[in-house]
Amino acid sequence: MFVSIEPLYASIVEDVKARVSNLPRPPKLAVVTCQPDPSTQSYLKSQEKMAKRLGIEYAVFEVPKATELKQILPKLSTDVSVDGILLTHPLPSGVSEFEVASLVSPEKDVEGRNPHSLGSILYDAFAFAPCTAEAVVRIIKYFTNPAGKRVVVVGRSVTVGKPVAMLLTQKGVDATVTICHSRTPDIPSITREADIVVVAIGRAKHLTKDYFKPGALVVDVGINVEENEIVGDVDPSVAEVCDLTPVPGGVGKVTTVVLMEHVVRAAERRILGK
Amino acid sequence: MFVSIEPLYASIVEDVKARVSNLPRPPKLAVVTCQPDPSTQSYLKSQEKMAKRLGIEYAVFEVPKATELKQILPKLSTDVSVDGILLTHPLPSGVSEFEVASLVSPEKDVEGRNPHSLGSILYDAFAFAPCTAEAVVRIIKYFTNPAGKRVVVVGRSVTVGKPVAMLLTQKGVDATVTICHSRTPDIPSITREADIVVVAIGRAKHLTKDYFKPGALVVDVGINVEENEIVGDVDPSVAEVCDLTPVPGGVGKVTTVVLMEHVVRAAERRILGK
Repeated sequence: MFVSIEPLYASIVEDVKARVSNLPRPPKLAVVTCQPDPSTQSYLKSQEKMAKRLGIEYAVFEVPKATELKQILPKLSTDVSVDGILLTHPLPSGVSEFEVASLVSPEKDVEGRNPHSLGSILYDAFAFAPCTAEAVVRIIKYFTNPAGKRVVVVGRSVTVGKPVAMLLTQKGVDATVTICHSRTPDIPSITREADIVVVAIGRAKHLTKDYFKPGALVVDVGINVEENEIVGDVDPSVAEVCDLTPVPGGVGKVTTVVLMEHVVRAAERRILGK
Repeated sequence: MFVSIEPLYASIVEDVKARVSNLPRPPKLAVVTCQPDPSTQSYLKSQEKMAKRLGIEYAVFEVPKATELKQILPKLSTDVSVDGILLTHPLPSGVSEFEVASLVSPEKDVEGRNPHSLGSILYDAFAFAPCTAEAVVRIIKYFTNPAGKRVVVVGRSVTVGKPVAMLLTQKGVDATVTICHSRTPDIPSITREADIVVVAIGRAKHLTKDYFKPGALVVDVGINVEENEIVGDVDPSVAEVCDLTPVPGGVGKVTTVVLMEHVVRAAERRILGK
């Protein structure tokens, strides 16, 4: 069946609102955008609406050029009024994701993109994890205890696959994790061994029922457009035999609120020192 | 049987010597040590001997106090005469590994301990990997091509298990990696599926023949002292059915020269910009 993400989503929203109201000033998210295309603009609009609903200040900085981008990120990193920094895509030509991500102070890196943040996860130290990766882990923990379970992650991206594997391997989470990818032969033989499967490959409805052990929890991270419809990486028929997260309204929905929670957490750390 | 590490070791040594001779000045390794106990002192002696043999300058800085340590690391990070920085253990009380590792510039982080270096591995970007983890990957690549193979890593430390998993998952290496650890139930059932097993748990002769598929390549990272003898994490009898790296004279031996190669690479990047 499809699992319902709504109760988890609602509980994070309530928690974020309560924590915002405990702060002496509203948390502030600085959004840096380069040449926002229509889809980025609509994304920013809906994000701003959500931020306002939660009591989070939302300030957009438009910097079309690579040189400006490389200047504004360190500047916002030291700006005392800013708690979190978000950078939209596409980036201007001539800069790499890796390069600009390294310019965002880890304390304000609410998207978890700075290599320092990712490395901190390996240390089991505090860091903001990539929001999608954290949303996946939240969903898993909401429905089951991953300790001692076999988890297979399909996909090795730096925003989902690899950080999910590292988060689930941390002490206290204690899953046994396998990472599969495009060069893995016979993926179904591996995913069928798993109690929990996380799929983040960006191919519409690619994983069918024969990939899974009946009763497994399947977390579908994919967001693909097929015939004007948003579909996941997992075929919906999998819900007949497994617990499957829906697309849309699954991982993506939790991700949006995890980002806002990171902003609040960043503000708490900066204002309250916790 | 036990595999011979000697040819790989010798080839790295020759390569390092040749590269040193191509530089306009000797590479310089700065070694920061706090309160070196006798075992650290003997380690430094043998390391200095090796550095000199390879044409690498070796300078020791003794800083007993935490405050001095936190000052000298940023200072050496900007010192133009220094190519690589190494920090010995034990650390003075009141500082964490994570905190001081973050103070070493990634460009000079030849031990691969800065969280930024670890996160860079997830980005498939240039970084110095932890030396032991890189030694493991070098050994695997020397004996086989890990692409498409099942690798099981036993142990989830930040210096070995996790970075080995991330290095082997990188594009172009392309192994399918599973990380097991102390909270994994029935480890033998998982390691027996693997073509390659990396063991880094710090328990003398703990993994016996029943853990492995016959013919598997087993990389033993353990260095344990048992009855005045140095032994690995894998029982030597495993060599009867698998290709096993020896302890001593296996991973540890390659690690020492990987560190020196990192110093040369750091110097090449700084002097030659490559």
